[in-house]
Amino acid sequence: MADTSAQTPPNTLFPFELVRPELERVEVSIREQVRAFDPAVEPYVAYVCNTSGKRIRPALAILVGGAAGGVTEAHVKIGVILELIHMATLVHDDIMDGANTRRMVPTANAKWGNALSVLLGDALFSHALTLATDFNDLDICRKVGNAAREVCQGEIIQTQRRFDLTFTKAEYFRIIEMKTGALFAAATGLSANLSGLDAEAEAKLYSYGMKLGTAYQIYDDCLDLVGSEEVVGKTLRTDLIKGKLTLPILNLLETASEAQRMKLNKRILDQEPLDLPVLLGIAEYEGAIESAVDTALNLLEECREDLSPLADSVHTDALRQITWFLAGLLEKCRR
Amino acid sequence: MADTSAQTPPNTLFPFELVRPELERVEVSIREQVRAFDPAVEPYVAYVCNTSGKRIRPALAILVGGAAGGVTEAHVKIGVILELIHMATLVHDDIMDGANTRRMVPTANAKWGNALSVLLGDALFSHALTLATDFNDLDICRKVGNAAREVCQGEIIQTQRRFDLTFTKAEYFRIIEMKTGALFAAATGLSANLSGLDAEAEAKLYSYGMKLGTAYQIYDDCLDLVGSEEVVGKTLRTDLIKGKLTLPILNLLETASEAQRMKLNKRILDQEPLDLPVLLGIAEYEGAIESAVDTALNLLEECREDLSPLADSVHTDALRQITWFLAGLLEKCRR
Repeated sequence: MADTSAQTPPNTLFPFELVRPELERVEVSIREQVRAFDPAVEPYVAYVCNTSGKRIRPALAILVGGAAGGVTEAHVKIGVILELIHMATLVHDDIMDGANTRRMVPTANAKWGNALSVLLGDALFSHALTLATDFNDLDICRKVGNAAREVCQGEIIQTQRRFDLTFTKAEYFRIIEMKTGALFAAATGLSANLSGLDAEAEAKLYSYGMKLGTAYQIYDDCLDLVGSEEVVGKTLRTDLIKGKLTLPILNLLETASEAQRMKLNKRILDQEPLDLPVLLGIAEYEGAIESAVDTALNLLEECREDLSPLADSVHTDALRQITWFLAGLLEKCRR
Repeated sequence: MADTSAQTPPNTLFPFELVRPELERVEVSIREQVRAFDPAVEPYVAYVCNTSGKRIRPALAILVGGAAGGVTEAHVKIGVILELIHMATLVHDDIMDGANTRRMVPTANAKWGNALSVLLGDALFSHALTLATDFNDLDICRKVGNAAREVCQGEIIQTQRRFDLTFTKAEYFRIIEMKTGALFAAATGLSANLSGLDAEAEAKLYSYGMKLGTAYQIYDDCLDLVGSEEVVGKTLRTDLIKGKLTLPILNLLETASEAQRMKLNKRILDQEPLDLPVLLGIAEYEGAIESAVDTALNLLEECREDLSPLADSVHTDALRQITWFLAGLLEKCRR
């Protein structure tokens, strides 16, 4: 058993470095998938595969495989499938957000319009779910399909509850578990399953992925408020304008005085965009960020405990390092 | 063996009437599927399920089941799965077309905007593909997934080739086989498979669905040119404006004089909308419609031959009646 109580100090290297060769196999496999599409459709799929997705889900699947007896083609494949689903959601997200660039390159919708991009996401979705049949295991197909549906449902509820002041923290957590946690958890849980770990160990590693994904989303939500666009490399301060009530904002609403809440209430009910200067004119949000960071750090601590079924190894250590790496990024949001 | 050479006269009743009780079971099952979604998402799914989809695919699945030994829950389920995929594509089509109404009621995008509708289609897609795992048969999951991907790819190629004068008839047929034929063929082919027919019979019934779907799409494409909006109940003359080169138009381009082709060419290259008066100012299209109708009628004749693996029965007869029913609709396009 790994000693999960050990407070491993943050590694300066990004912990995915360890599985760089396996991540290369993921890239090769993604390129192979591109060729499974109709020749007329291939170039669109290739563009999206080359320009989006940070391969976090495949890296997690591979690290769990390495920690649970060794990385096989199955771990690479489950990573590819989940990454294809993730890329499909990014293509559709960019349409919904009207985003013109992602990671410095034009989005699919900017290049070929919304119509083609809606279909492109759909083709990626159906290809990924079909690819899951290669495992010859219906349980895996079902879990992959359910994870995909969870992501969509989480985003639907988020879209539905924009500008809604009755939105609760419990709902916020449920949404981010669905929209971000589900695919992280599928990566780590299914990878444990493919390594032949028992149901209890699979559940623990599923939980690791779920909590890591949730903490990652909280980080992303804090970053939207406090990050610097030059450093982060993407447009920030968009959540409030879109009416997305994220954890720091919910914290703020909780601690606001009655008068402050009334002002916020009015703006939200009038569907007026809430940008940062407006928000700061109403309430001070430093404590709200602090508290969100603490919530995420607690989740990361639980993550580390979820690694208990894995024997000590460089891969297990990397899974632990990821939580410290993210904790380091979260700490920077406090300033 | 059914006598497929018999020229059964068209029935005045729409041939799906025979399976009305089973189609009621399809509705019950679709309502059950709605409840499988998150309570917050359910109302959107319910709305789409109640307002879109003509249940052609379930009816075909059920008729093949009836003709091949009896309708079981499996035939109802495959019909439901394919209808959910079809509904997902309709939700996304309406976004791409900016359509505000479908079958006299507001579309999902008109009611809740494009963002929510993109996600709603995605959730329907992933639910349908996950539901296919209930058959405990990976081959069926794979065929359902492939059919879904074919539909998306067909629509991508169609979108890509708009306003493109080098578009050929071979490409047109390939696109409509993908975007319409694939789901019809999945309904009839998979239904034969679920009834335990052998691979040869499954292939014949797959071919029946493919040709019926193709003929149906040619009918729809002719209707767009010659139909009356009051009778058809939807907006027509949109294909040309969107630059979709359908079979009648391709026939017309083939028979046009060099001078006429040059004029058409110029308009298409300039991406100018081609509406009917413009088209009629350039060339006469009656022969082009006639020829498209003949092509579809030939496909329907081949459809009837594909029914040869089925014993004579009221269900087999209904599958034959459908081809005559559609032939009757096609004949009306000649005038």
